[in-house]
Amino acid sequence: MAVKHYKKQDDVSYTLGITLTIELLKHRAEEAVAVYYHSAFERNDTFLMIEELCRARNIPFTENDKAFRILSDKENCFVIGEFRKYQHDIQKDQTHLVLVNPSNAGNMGTIIRTAIGFGVDNLAIIRPAADIFDPKTVRATMGSLFHLRFTYYDSFEKYLRDVSKRPIYPFMLKGSTSLSTVAITGTYSLVFGNEATGLPDEFMNYGQAIRIMHTDKIDSLNLPIAVSIALYQVTAPNFRH
Amino acid sequence: MAVKHYKKQDDVSYTLGITLTIELLKHRAEEAVAVYYHSAFERNDTFLMIEELCRARNIPFTENDKAFRILSDKENCFVIGEFRKYQHDIQKDQTHLVLVNPSNAGNMGTIIRTAIGFGVDNLAIIRPAADIFDPKTVRATMGSLFHLRFTYYDSFEKYLRDVSKRPIYPFMLKGSTSLSTVAITGTYSLVFGNEATGLPDEFMNYGQAIRIMHTDKIDSLNLPIAVSIALYQVTAPNFRH
Repeated sequence: MAVKHYKKQDDVSYTLGITLTIELLKHRAEEAVAVYYHSAFERNDTFLMIEELCRARNIPFTENDKAFRILSDKENCFVIGEFRKYQHDIQKDQTHLVLVNPSNAGNMGTIIRTAIGFGVDNLAIIRPAADIFDPKTVRATMGSLFHLRFTYYDSFEKYLRDVSKRPIYPFMLKGSTSLSTVAITGTYSLVFGNEATGLPDEFMNYGQAIRIMHTDKIDSLNLPIAVSIALYQVTAPNFRH
Repeated sequence: MAVKHYKKQDDVSYTLGITLTIELLKHRAEEAVAVYYHSAFERNDTFLMIEELCRARNIPFTENDKAFRILSDKENCFVIGEFRKYQHDIQKDQTHLVLVNPSNAGNMGTIIRTAIGFGVDNLAIIRPAADIFDPKTVRATMGSLFHLRFTYYDSFEKYLRDVSKRPIYPFMLKGSTSLSTVAITGTYSLVFGNEATGLPDEFMNYGQAIRIMHTDKIDSLNLPIAVSIALYQVTAPNFRH
């Protein structure tokens, strides 16, 4: 099957780059369809390592410069993995990160990287939302996507009905509780709104609304920054020696 | 003078968008050269507000669709501010954020936004480094750039010789002290390396090297994320009610 420009409704997506493709082969090899290399890719140790990973998993590893012209806008991309999109649903009784209407693929990828980094492996996404398999999302996760469990929901109510009862912490500029003074333990959900608009006011009713305090010289923190600070703060006790 | 594509050596730069341009007019009007609007910009309250800000400051406010074709790749950009680059040096006896060889303009802008948000208004930048006046940096700061003091240095040694004696905290994956257990007070410098390579090992010698603990499922945190978590953690006591 010929490689083509990525579209949301496609059954496959792509890992653009060496690191991403190695993560695919190590952690989601069962979904890998093919790996392509550029004719300019030196036959070095990395090349041989990827070739061996593909051979061991019975995945075609072929030269395909056209795939790079179609899929990659970066000059230093020498390997592309093609993989089937898959489901890997959230664990309903675990701690969740919930993104309500995230609109930017790169931001979502950066958030996933931090979540996996801090041991929060379950992501619920409320539609309308960015595409988790967009190659831009995949790239920004730096491969951590392949460790993530995720489920899309059509509404926050549907999410609530589907998961175990737990405290909900909506992060809002109107929140009255400061992140640095709140104690969050057990199983919980951290909820964040859209990049431009945040969470609608009604989320004040779902649980204790939390605010990350900052000076009035900025209107708000960038979304991946706010999510990452929250994840760091609430998971820090798990990382203390 | 005609608007042209931005280059690092130019004497002027641009604020692409309404919010950014308003921040320029409110906080750095003395450097504003001109403000351009697109013919498709509705004559609404925002238009009138910007017109009034310009009039009060004696800054030309003119229709200039060509400026948008040259400078902006976004469809929803209706206002561009042109401003002279300026110096606003760091305070040598204050707490500093130090970026060693940051390479990405957008990342630097996001970092500036968080730093201003957490009250760290002094940024030292060690060359080679991204351009703080690149319109991509300016845009990512969301206007907080105009509150920042910053100085470029040719080396970290030159920075050290120029500022008051203080504890240096290099952030490194090899750091032995966990951020969440360290107490940082007084006047200090938080130091971060390049996006891809981090800080060279020699920085272990400059002070107590700090690490942000995370799982081994990721190699590292994204640079703006790491800087923002550090800024949040060390400044949190200033924001407690």
